[in-house]
Amino acid sequence: MNLDLLRTLHSENPIVFNIANFVTVQDVANGLNALGASPIMSAEIQEAPDMVNISQAVCLNLGTLTVAQVAQMKAVGQLANAQAKPIVFDPVAVGASPYRQKVAETLLTSFQVAVIRGNAGEIATLAGMAWQPKGIDAGSGTGDLAQIARACALKFHCVVVLSGPTDIITDGQRVTQVHNGTPLFQLHVGSGDLLSSLVAAFTAVSERDYFEAAQVACLVLAATGQLVVKQMTADRPGTFAVELLDKLHLITIAEIEKIAEIS
Amino acid sequence: MNLDLLRTLHSENPIVFNIANFVTVQDVANGLNALGASPIMSAEIQEAPDMVNISQAVCLNLGTLTVAQVAQMKAVGQLANAQAKPIVFDPVAVGASPYRQKVAETLLTSFQVAVIRGNAGEIATLAGMAWQPKGIDAGSGTGDLAQIARACALKFHCVVVLSGPTDIITDGQRVTQVHNGTPLFQLHVGSGDLLSSLVAAFTAVSERDYFEAAQVACLVLAATGQLVVKQMTADRPGTFAVELLDKLHLITIAEIEKIAEIS
Amino acid sequence: MNLDLLRTLHSENPIVFNIANFVTVQDVANGLNALGASPIMSAEIQEAPDMVNISQAVCLNLGTLTVAQVAQMKAVGQLANAQAKPIVFDPVAVGASPYRQKVAETLLTSFQVAVIRGNAGEIATLAGMAWQPKGIDAGSGTGDLAQIARACALKFHCVVVLSGPTDIITDGQRVTQVHNGTPLFQLHVGSGDLLSSLVAAFTAVSERDYFEAAQVACLVLAATGQLVVKQMTADRPGTFAVELLDKLHLITIAEIEKIAEIS
Repeated sequence: MNLDLLRTLHSENPIVFNIANFVTVQDVANGLNALGASPIMSAEIQEAPDMVNISQAVCLNLGTLTVAQVAQMKAVGQLANAQAKPIVFDPVAVGASPYRQKVAETLLTSFQVAVIRGNAGEIATLAGMAWQPKGIDAGSGTGDLAQIARACALKFHCVVVLSGPTDIITDGQRVTQVHNGTPLFQLHVGSGDLLSSLVAAFTAVSERDYFEAAQVACLVLAATGQLVVKQMTADRPGTFAVELLDKLHLITIAEIEKIAEIS
Repeated sequence: MNLDLLRTLHSENPIVFNIANFVTVQDVANGLNALGASPIMSAEIQEAPDMVNISQAVCLNLGTLTVAQVAQMKAVGQLANAQAKPIVFDPVAVGASPYRQKVAETLLTSFQVAVIRGNAGEIATLAGMAWQPKGIDAGSGTGDLAQIARACALKFHCVVVLSGPTDIITDGQRVTQVHNGTPLFQLHVGSGDLLSSLVAAFTAVSERDYFEAAQVACLVLAATGQLVVKQMTADRPGTFAVELLDKLHLITIAEIEKIAEIS
Repeated sequence: MNLDLLRTLHSENPIVFNIANFVTVQDVANGLNALGASPIMSAEIQEAPDMVNISQAVCLNLGTLTVAQVAQMKAVGQLANAQAKPIVFDPVAVGASPYRQKVAETLLTSFQVAVIRGNAGEIATLAGMAWQPKGIDAGSGTGDLAQIARACALKFHCVVVLSGPTDIITDGQRVTQVHNGTPLFQLHVGSGDLLSSLVAAFTAVSERDYFEAAQVACLVLAATGQLVVKQMTADRPGTFAVELLDKLHLITIAEIEKIAEIS
């Protein structure tokens, strides 16, 4: 894994255009900013061309979709494809709602994404495999997570990040697992949304190696969270969110390498 | 008051579907999550059936209403009624805007709510009693707050929470007052929105005793805030918001019982 | 500069109506509240008259504009003009998108604003002067910032705040510079949005001296940030955002006067 991508991110400060989940948008913008990317959000389809033009990557988040937003996502996705700019797709709660599932599947046939990032329930739903999702949470199931992630990657011809206690990153053939992290991520709404946007930031500086970009994003965020929690004496989800932003700004490659657990 | 409901909430982890105020939505989602519920937000009327199906309770917040959102609230309210799932209604700033007042009254005749949660100005406006609301704040008046809350409960055939320095909970007959809390709640925008969603979380696990659920929600939040402030040496609204999330996750029934002031 | 305006703000607690950027809206609401103003947000054009009626100032933020929101801004702007209530206009990312630039220019001919608040890239774009904006960030250029700000003020017949490491405030003739602040503001998304809304809060209590109001807002926010950072041992953007809210509530005129650097 090439952690130099973090150095590249710091020096290039790529603009990441997010069609965002309004629940977590402030945290996502601050997280991108803290890490060294430049976030921009837009909700108006008429400025889709301008936004794609100025961005180096796009993150589409289904978390609070509307019919108007889905139309915007379709336009932005096709514009990004035309400019060969990477798209990260976050199918929030897609397993909890047949309506969302249909929207996600329609969007995924309207343009080609670089990376899909979801939890076990979301990725299993897209892959068409058995799982019991629960609202925005991963839910429960007995399938082999790496197999589920690979099936999703093969189906949509992209990199898949199935995030959770262990993050699984696959391009359909190769599989990398990031074992770092902390259960506090589950206690903070928007950890997944943040990861998706950080993946987008790394795809922007990865010279089209999206498998690499996705791995680095997972490791950086997981290691950051782990280092934050190391200093805590109890599970404090509010403090965790604040200190995660602090540490995203301060973390060094050396600190990450020291604790990285990858397989 | 049956604080075992907090234990039930922790074990059942109910999904609370919020049609949210976009100003405070992230804090509300994190607050629900910290306490042990599972928040979901949606802004699209077409997925209203899916969202009601997967939820155990619904919270409708007028804070940043639009015509489209009001239509969504009506659909969701009627679906929730049909499935006998409790609805909590938060009439934000209803006294500050005749338009909002009309919207609130129309919605309240379109479906039956379990609980209305508002400040003095909002509840007085719905009850049709004299008060001077001020924007999103409670404003000022001379009426008897318990009488105002009871009039509102009788008018809308539901439980009413009139929150403030003292929270008043009534089903129109019985009245409970929670005297715990801290003035810091007033300094943090969204304390009321959070309370409304926490009431919804407790209604989800209350076996239809919404009067009980509302009391427990008020006591849990008020006691949590009080315990947070006990550790503070000055009025710090930013720190209060962070530590409130921490403590919502960590608070125990024993801690609450020790400081509860109820009448 | 008349710092007594802060005392007036505390005592009058003006209602500031924000048509907001949904990315940063919670922080802006909490910042207004912490300082002693009363925030209200609304997204529905039909309640525009009610909202303008109850407010003492209006802040219009282009950050996440939509066609519907622009129509609402036009209606609100004209209503505020009719009631002689000050309008603060924040042209977020106007230099990054020709679409936004056109929207901004159309709005600025539809009603008269009291203050425009933007970064160098945004103000230069409105002034029609050379600059290289970057997304939501200031970007880079070689022009004289005071000259750019003055040109913008003269063009739109209003006070202009060009904020950055040094804040420049001008009515087209007079120019004040506030040298206080901290680079941490750049690390926190929404610092500019917050400043715009704080300017609106001060215009509400300034007896129509908007040049004075804008200066005081800049100095209060810059000094607050500077005092927060003085206590920090590393650049922690998450902690900064939290403690900025704390200090906005606690800061005194004496503390500000002690460190003010104005020219």
